[in-house]
Amino acid sequence: MNYNLLHTPDGVKDYYGKEYASRRLLEKCLHRKLLSFGFEDIRTPSFEYFEIFSDEASRADSSELYKFFDKENRTLVLRPDFTPSIARCVAKYFPEDPTPRRFSYHGNVFTNTSTLQGKLCEETQMGAELIGDGSVQADAEMIALVAEALSEAGLKEFQISIGEVDYFKGLCEEAGLDPQTEDKLREYITGKNIFAAQELLESRGLPEEHVRKLLEIGNSFEDHGDLSVLKQNAANERSVKAIERLEHLYGILEHYGVTDRISFDLGMLGKHGYYTGVIFKAFTYGVGRPVASGGRYDSLLPLFGKNAPAIGFVLRIDDLAEALNRVKSLPCPKDDRVIVFYDTHDDDSYGKALAEAQKLRSEGKNVILTPAT
Amino acid sequence: MNYNLLHTPDGVKDYYGKEYASRRLLEKCLHRKLLSFGFEDIRTPSFEYFEIFSDEASRADSSELYKFFDKENRTLVLRPDFTPSIARCVAKYFPEDPTPRRFSYHGNVFTNTSTLQGKLCEETQMGAELIGDGSVQADAEMIALVAEALSEAGLKEFQISIGEVDYFKGLCEEAGLDPQTEDKLREYITGKNIFAAQELLESRGLPEEHVRKLLEIGNSFEDHGDLSVLKQNAANERSVKAIERLEHLYGILEHYGVTDRISFDLGMLGKHGYYTGVIFKAFTYGVGRPVASGGRYDSLLPLFGKNAPAIGFVLRIDDLAEALNRVKSLPCPKDDRVIVFYDTHDDDSYGKALAEAQKLRSEGKNVILTPAT
Repeated sequence: MNYNLLHTPDGVKDYYGKEYASRRLLEKCLHRKLLSFGFEDIRTPSFEYFEIFSDEASRADSSELYKFFDKENRTLVLRPDFTPSIARCVAKYFPEDPTPRRFSYHGNVFTNTSTLQGKLCEETQMGAELIGDGSVQADAEMIALVAEALSEAGLKEFQISIGEVDYFKGLCEEAGLDPQTEDKLREYITGKNIFAAQELLESRGLPEEHVRKLLEIGNSFEDHGDLSVLKQNAANERSVKAIERLEHLYGILEHYGVTDRISFDLGMLGKHGYYTGVIFKAFTYGVGRPVASGGRYDSLLPLFGKNAPAIGFVLRIDDLAEALNRVKSLPCPKDDRVIVFYDTHDDDSYGKALAEAQKLRSEGKNVILTPAT
Repeated sequence: MNYNLLHTPDGVKDYYGKEYASRRLLEKCLHRKLLSFGFEDIRTPSFEYFEIFSDEASRADSSELYKFFDKENRTLVLRPDFTPSIARCVAKYFPEDPTPRRFSYHGNVFTNTSTLQGKLCEETQMGAELIGDGSVQADAEMIALVAEALSEAGLKEFQISIGEVDYFKGLCEEAGLDPQTEDKLREYITGKNIFAAQELLESRGLPEEHVRKLLEIGNSFEDHGDLSVLKQNAANERSVKAIERLEHLYGILEHYGVTDRISFDLGMLGKHGYYTGVIFKAFTYGVGRPVASGGRYDSLLPLFGKNAPAIGFVLRIDDLAEALNRVKSLPCPKDDRVIVFYDTHDDDSYGKALAEAQKLRSEGKNVILTPAT
């Protein structure tokens, strides 16, 4: 026997037994929550043409795509992310329809990465996309839905950080930063590398006041009251509007009753050019990455020819299951299967056992019919 | 806008709206049936090392695999088939355990084929594997389960053909056929090419009696009574035992009450070397391929180092949905979502609408909260 045959590639895994049963309970619970907000299921192919996941359309890193070829030698890519596929799908099937549409997806995404960081190459995501509604109410719904879904899944300790990229963009405009400096600054702030950010801005000879305002972005704020500091900092309409939108958002989240989960982090900026408004991430203990993240990407659908705003989020099921498992809060499935035995050498015994098994099955029981040993 | 961006690769598709909702209902119904027979869910990776799907281990054609590479340049393959992965998984996690185990899977398989025949390159399969039970009762359970699952899914017209490769192998031994002739004959009989089979056997100078017996294999038989003709034909123990097993099988299927679905086709032989006993396929109108197929492959687990018999089947969900759709028997989902409207310019209206939506959600309703237009 070849022992290598028992190995799976690095970064992928088998799910079975109790672990998988409790995973499925978790997925069912989250899915029920998405349905309750009126989202409908959608499924896109596991692979698509390379262009769908271009740098512009996807949050994924194009060096980490699994690429292969079809019979006509066109490049195919295992999806690293659902959002571009769903944008394509909605642009294709509802090109002119202005009705807001809610889609939920559930499946696997693929990242061709070295597994040294313990990151899975195939992981399960469930998520939601709200397309065609650019309102702050839509923003609030998506954030509240994440909070409710995580709570319902049994996660007790988590926080959702909310940012707004327009605040940063407005301050950059105000300071007259060139695009290269803005990109560099975005990178440093996203990486919480405030010293590098300070050095960068000072090397550009920026007035001390602008430096202070821009560095202030890197701080986190516990609640909506703190936003007023940031509003005072801003002397431009774009940044002020961004804060006012967050204040409005916070008011709606109060209606939802989820503000104890909320903090603000204006330094959360995401990938360049992708997010166009609110951005949010849910963190919990013991998991390095956010268990959920999302935001507004109003320029994505136009890439596929549909003029519609969009906001979405993803729940990272593997990370969430791990977090729940650490705090012993994973749903615990009961193995309620009934076992009916029969004697292999006695057709009469088999006939009776089968009749019993079929009767129990017709009553809704799950029955294993198996030889006595 | 780039219209190409709206295209999916040939042979894969998007599922949404009513079509996908009814597909999910169908899957749920089939899954419930598998659970009722005590099968438990298992999930293996979407891709594995190439070796797992070797010619020996997989029914799939190795020229139709999607191949790609990991960061260490090892060849990975998108699974064309679940069975080898599950065999690997069971051999890995239960190497010595003799307990019969029932696993059910549900997911997508991938075939890199030209789509001229209208075959999907990514299709959904649900299936079951019963590992560690080599009895005729196990054979009967799997066939009855297919019959019950298809009936429960709403398929009214279908037939399950049953074969037994040992009957063919016994007759070949009896006639003293060399392996090359046996392979060629297998191919002709599988393809129902009886003239070619006759020519082949006559060209080998085989006595007329052996030719007649071997060609008889190509016929189908309506019920278990007809099997006696085949038994009389056989002058070797292997073939006689194969028929006796089928007779025993039929008796058990009578207990299950599914024999009106059953016919015998001893010319159904499957891929060389893969099946080691019973083999079965479920056919219905309007779909070229069987909507379900399966059989016994007792030599598969030993390839992965576990000495255990195994039998399994696969339900081809896309083909089954198509068949059900043709006869207007696809489960018809109700869109029972409630829509609650609010006035975008009135925070009071929003607050009331949200309270109403949350109340309805807490009562188990699925609610869309959306701006009035």
